[in-house]
Amino acid sequence: MNLDDLPIRDDLRGKTPYGAPQIDVPVRLNTNENPHPPSPALVADLARAIGEQAGELNRYPDRDAVELRAELAAYLGHGLTTEQVWAANGSNEVLQQILQAFGGHGRTAMGFEPSYSMHPIITSGTSTEWVRASREDDFSIDPGKAVAAVEEHRPDIVFITSPNNPTGTAQPLATIEAIASAAPGIVVVDEAYAEFAREGTPSALTLLPAHPRMIVTRTMSKAFAMAGTRVGYLAAHPAVVQALLLVRLPYHLSTLTQTAARVALRHQEELLGSVDELRRERDATVTWLRSKGLAVADSDANFVLFGRFPERRTVWEGMLERGVLIREVGPPEWLRVSIGTSEEMAAFRAALEGVL
Amino acid sequence: MNLDDLPIRDDLRGKTPYGAPQIDVPVRLNTNENPHPPSPALVADLARAIGEQAGELNRYPDRDAVELRAELAAYLGHGLTTEQVWAANGSNEVLQQILQAFGGHGRTAMGFEPSYSMHPIITSGTSTEWVRASREDDFSIDPGKAVAAVEEHRPDIVFITSPNNPTGTAQPLATIEAIASAAPGIVVVDEAYAEFAREGTPSALTLLPAHPRMIVTRTMSKAFAMAGTRVGYLAAHPAVVQALLLVRLPYHLSTLTQTAARVALRHQEELLGSVDELRRERDATVTWLRSKGLAVADSDANFVLFGRFPERRTVWEGMLERGVLIREVGPPEWLRVSIGTSEEMAAFRAALEGVL
Repeated sequence: MNLDDLPIRDDLRGKTPYGAPQIDVPVRLNTNENPHPPSPALVADLARAIGEQAGELNRYPDRDAVELRAELAAYLGHGLTTEQVWAANGSNEVLQQILQAFGGHGRTAMGFEPSYSMHPIITSGTSTEWVRASREDDFSIDPGKAVAAVEEHRPDIVFITSPNNPTGTAQPLATIEAIASAAPGIVVVDEAYAEFAREGTPSALTLLPAHPRMIVTRTMSKAFAMAGTRVGYLAAHPAVVQALLLVRLPYHLSTLTQTAARVALRHQEELLGSVDELRRERDATVTWLRSKGLAVADSDANFVLFGRFPERRTVWEGMLERGVLIREVGPPEWLRVSIGTSEEMAAFRAALEGVL
Repeated sequence: MNLDDLPIRDDLRGKTPYGAPQIDVPVRLNTNENPHPPSPALVADLARAIGEQAGELNRYPDRDAVELRAELAAYLGHGLTTEQVWAANGSNEVLQQILQAFGGHGRTAMGFEPSYSMHPIITSGTSTEWVRASREDDFSIDPGKAVAAVEEHRPDIVFITSPNNPTGTAQPLATIEAIASAAPGIVVVDEAYAEFAREGTPSALTLLPAHPRMIVTRTMSKAFAMAGTRVGYLAAHPAVVQALLLVRLPYHLSTLTQTAARVALRHQEELLGSVDELRRERDATVTWLRSKGLAVADSDANFVLFGRFPERRTVWEGMLERGVLIREVGPPEWLRVSIGTSEEMAAFRAALEGVL
């Protein structure tokens, strides 16, 4: 018996599991991780906190993760409260819960591609139909065309990724507002990379009071350097959070996860301390790539999309042979590099010069 | 704006979030937790292991949790290998992934009620239709009627909970085999409470070689006393695991969870050491309840269903007033008590005598 013999859902046939290759190489610049490991002080604090909680691991966790949500609300600011914040195992689970509550068979979700490829995957995984709208050649969203697409398709859910993955493109709030005003249902602003945006780029959190059907999602995997902890979260109207409670699996967030996330929030100054350095590395990487005559998308994230390579697989493989793992993702002929330490970016530049 | 104003899925309207009340009382016997906390030695080992891993928390976890799955396979025995085992955040997430791969709109899942109430909830949450079959008055499954129900409805997925929650009833393998032989699709044997079964009750794991579309699910929340860690797992044909890889959210299982589960497996002798004591307490509880003239379901789990109380809410509230939290769940007129320590069961008996 093999996979084809099993009665899997028809739309899964022929698919392969999502995920970048997990290859053990010296320089891993492929999944937009923060290259800076937690400090010994944070590690010690985490081990101590886990040790304090572990004596009750025979008990289920706080099902509503109230303390964590309160602390995430305080981190986000904008006057947000516990009742407006929700958390799950990575922003993927947050997004899946949104689709389960507001999507499903007979409903549609729209996104502006190229964008985060998990959006259509999670959409289809919840029997929701995916409607593809397009970005411009510079990967921005044209507000007029976006509003027209929303009015034509009337999607139940609209995804706006800003800064966008894999292109790095941040959207002006005016564009997000125009789409939100036209959208008949839920608007998800995926701000996984918000902390990396350039100075003066406001968050869609500022739009929440005027748009009660808007949801802003965030993650601790990127700027917070906590990818291994798997914590995603969102801010929205309290009624949206109540809707998600109807579909969340009970006790979805373990005691360990809640504890670790709270420790990370206590150390936010340290964890977010690398963001400025990563932004400088990013801007330097953009400048360097352009100096080599390459096309580079403006980036407000911790990665840079560059090209164009008619044979991008060859470039990707050449980099891997030189010990640098980048990502073959996004539109054809483009590659994405996550921003690492200055040493890792030096290795990236040396390897790319070797390949070109 | 409130919840009713939001465009939630139609079948969610009017529903309330699943979950037992989380009330802070002296004696909590309502969610089938293991009453024994991990030992100081285990807690220290866990804090140390987390401390060792935490230095890499800026990196994503092993997406396929290979080492944990290998160790779970070794724990289960029966010649199982890594490729036949899968793990997720609690058996609820395991079940949801099964529904996402093999259920969905236009498909059906069947269960024998009364049983674990999350089965129909997760089924409906994945747009799958729930088909209700019935248990006998003693909460067993009649194999002839079960096969007839399967042949009539031809469900894409059949759930058999054994030992059953909330009744405690274990099914003979012959019944499970008869249903599996008749079922056209996937058969899920939910063995969350398997470790508590009375001597001589074999696991459905022994049926896997002959039934490649059978899945046996387990959890570390109950016998393993790790409810706060949230680890569920399953054993099945390798192709079934490949199917689940198509729907699992990438990096669904955090580094912390993988690490904690592996520490728990290293300490399995300690953690499972309380199982015999809990079985004795359970059998004594059954005997005592029957001595009081109450109806009691035979139990192969770490809880006992007893009744019958025309006003069960009054009994539940009376117990709560006396500091003992039990569960108002399952068929009308019945209540469920999880098996705690001998001190907790003494408190349970005293409270129940006070109420009756």
